Amino acid sequence: MYPEYLNILIEYFKSIPGVGSKTAERYALLMLSKDEAFINGFAQSLIDVKTKIKSCSSCGNLSDEDVCLICKDKTRDAHKILVVSNPQDVIAFEKTGEYHGLYHVLNGVLSQQKGVLPEDLNIESLKSRVTSDVEVIIATNPTLEGETTALYLQKVLQQKGVITSRLAYGLPMGGHVDYADELTLIKALEGRKQL
Amino acid sequence: MYPEYLNILIEYFKSIPGVGSKTAERYALLMLSKDEAFINGFAQSLIDVKTKIKSCSSCGNLSDEDVCLICKDKTRDAHKILVVSNPQDVIAFEKTGEYHGLYHVLNGVLSQQKGVLPEDLNIESLKSRVTSDVEVIIATNPTLEGETTALYLQKVLQQKGVITSRLAYGLPMGGHVDYADELTLIKALEGRKQL
Repeated sequence: MYPEYLNILIEYFKSIPGVGSKTAERYALLMLSKDEAFINGFAQSLIDVKTKIKSCSSCGNLSDEDVCLICKDKTRDAHKILVVSNPQDVIAFEKTGEYHGLYHVLNGVLSQQKGVLPEDLNIESLKSRVTSDVEVIIATNPTLEGETTALYLQKVLQQKGVITSRLAYGLPMGGHVDYADELTLIKALEGRKQL
Repeated sequence: MYPEYLNILIEYFKSIPGVGSKTAERYALLMLSKDEAFINGFAQSLIDVKTKIKSCSSCGNLSDEDVCLICKDKTRDAHKILVVSNPQDVIAFEKTGEYHGLYHVLNGVLSQQKGVLPEDLNIESLKSRVTSDVEVIIATNPTLEGETTALYLQKVLQQKGVITSRLAYGLPMGGHVDYADELTLIKALEGRKQL
């Protein structure tokens, strides 16, 4: 019984995974209470994101220019490339403030279930980008799909004589041994370091 | 480190109450993966909702015409007016399929804390709408503010000789006595009916 225009907006919000009917309704009704400047700005922002953001031609990260700010930054260590699944992961590493190399964004992971093959990912440009004096750090998630992708990359890169490494597995900082799952504990044991 | 256009969109999503940084980021990134038709449709829908939806001049409910579909519907019982706080409540009653009268949407409730006074609500038009052959059913929430609003409306309407009623209080259907709060149990006892 909502006016049709409102139903349409509710449907748009509902198409976001994780947003149910009630939440979509709340979002749409909230938009009604916003002023015109907000709504026009929001609408324009959606269009801008779609039309003006592209993939960095070098690393595949999101960028509003042909080459992203990180790839352009000459102060960064070009001998390290951190390979991540998606742009959010770049942000996560940038927030640490401790990594000063470059990135390579795969924009996905290999998945038999979802039918994602190597050619669907940003892997070709990684191959052409690396040289033998570069260390490639593979930082895909420690999940089945992330591991499969890491193994595939390792194989491909080692054929080219590139040094590859993988993020360490173990207990998360601040975690508790008795709450850790078995697989994490096994990996933490395997990866133990002499003090 | 996200491109500026993306940061802007993240901020728009973040301005929705209940949407935090991580969620806003996820929504904005999802928009990137949508096609152009979706984005243009979404943007247009936001603008449509803002520019084309107004309040029904009779009941105050949302409408894309001057008078809403419910007020226009001649088959509905014009001798009953259900007074609710907001348009979502109209939808809730419509979903029951059991109410066939008209509505009146206050668009808020009286609140000392938030400084909402009777003149801020859609009350004047209710007063001019009711006649002595109409039953007004007050369906504000059973909260402090809802109760205050109900009492105020009752006083105002009774001065005009209008029959007013209030929704019943009691145990929610499917609820458990041992989980009900004390106030609900007290109200359920007070409102008990002889079998």
